[in-house]
Amino acid sequence: MTAWQTRTSTTVYENAWIRVREDAVTRPDGGEGVYGVVELRHPAVFVVPVTDDDEVVLVEVDRYPTGRRSLEVPAGGSDGEDALVAARRELAEETGLLADTWQDLGEVFSLNGVCDAPGRVLLARGLRAPGDATGQAEEGIVATHRLPWPVVLERVADGTITDNESIAALMRAAIALGRVR
Amino acid sequence: MTAWQTRTSTTVYENAWIRVREDAVTRPDGGEGVYGVVELRHPAVFVVPVTDDDEVVLVEVDRYPTGRRSLEVPAGGSDGEDALVAARRELAEETGLLADTWQDLGEVFSLNGVCDAPGRVLLARGLRAPGDATGQAEEGIVATHRLPWPVVLERVADGTITDNESIAALMRAAIALGRVR
Repeated sequence: MTAWQTRTSTTVYENAWIRVREDAVTRPDGGEGVYGVVELRHPAVFVVPVTDDDEVVLVEVDRYPTGRRSLEVPAGGSDGEDALVAARRELAEETGLLADTWQDLGEVFSLNGVCDAPGRVLLARGLRAPGDATGQAEEGIVATHRLPWPVVLERVADGTITDNESIAALMRAAIALGRVR
Repeated sequence: MTAWQTRTSTTVYENAWIRVREDAVTRPDGGEGVYGVVELRHPAVFVVPVTDDDEVVLVEVDRYPTGRRSLEVPAGGSDGEDALVAARRELAEETGLLADTWQDLGEVFSLNGVCDAPGRVLLARGLRAPGDATGQAEEGIVATHRLPWPVVLERVADGTITDNESIAALMRAAIALGRVR
């Protein structure tokens, strides 16, 4: 599948979420070099929750690495379990919502020139709000927003929504919902 | 902008492309913890090249971190210069194309729970092919593809296009071109 070859591999940093390794590699052109790879320990799930009124539920997250607040789809690490189980949990924890209908919109990879960071996008419909969002403080979520699709598109276009994973998840959802031509 | 506080910060790994630091942090809820942050040294540019016949030009890249071939928009690091300068260079190197019309589609961030990885999306139109793509081998590009928009959307939906940065760039472009409702 790949013409790259790994000659040696050394873990240079790890914590509970990421492992960083430095590999000595032979490139596809035959040259030798060094490649630093960041592995995400837990495959991610990205949930696009769409209400019966065609609103999208987004969370506003205070992100430490960028020092910014970011408007995003509910998401999280899968802790090794099934993507749907992880998606249900993340949606409930971050928004308090349950969904009657789930649709798997497939696999994605983030920053694949540097990272091995797989994820899955899921579309959640038939939303119900049986309880409160219990995991917001822990997840760094400062607010939840329900926005009609046209407003979501405006927020993607005007640079309010900057999170690549969220924009990509919204694209997969928009295509699945027949909103893109 | 952020309620997180940095108590100490230590560089744990660096190479020409990334720097990894481990920070001792105080979380928004007041708890103390450790945060590993991956900084991308060069802000990225993501170019969506659209031909006069409404085809999108994509490159097929052999990605070492994921061990997969990936169909993506032309992209690269900005080497610190203006995003438009970087975008012109990456488009020419990866596809051999020049563009008469450029539109800045704004800032994006990748994997912002782990990385500080800013980028910009640019729409390139009025494409001309004065020469060959000279940088393909070096960039790991194995092929170039020109696909009509409906086929691009199919490839995003069917999981052929999995690169989150590319899917997000295509979403920004699709909105700018009035293709999403």
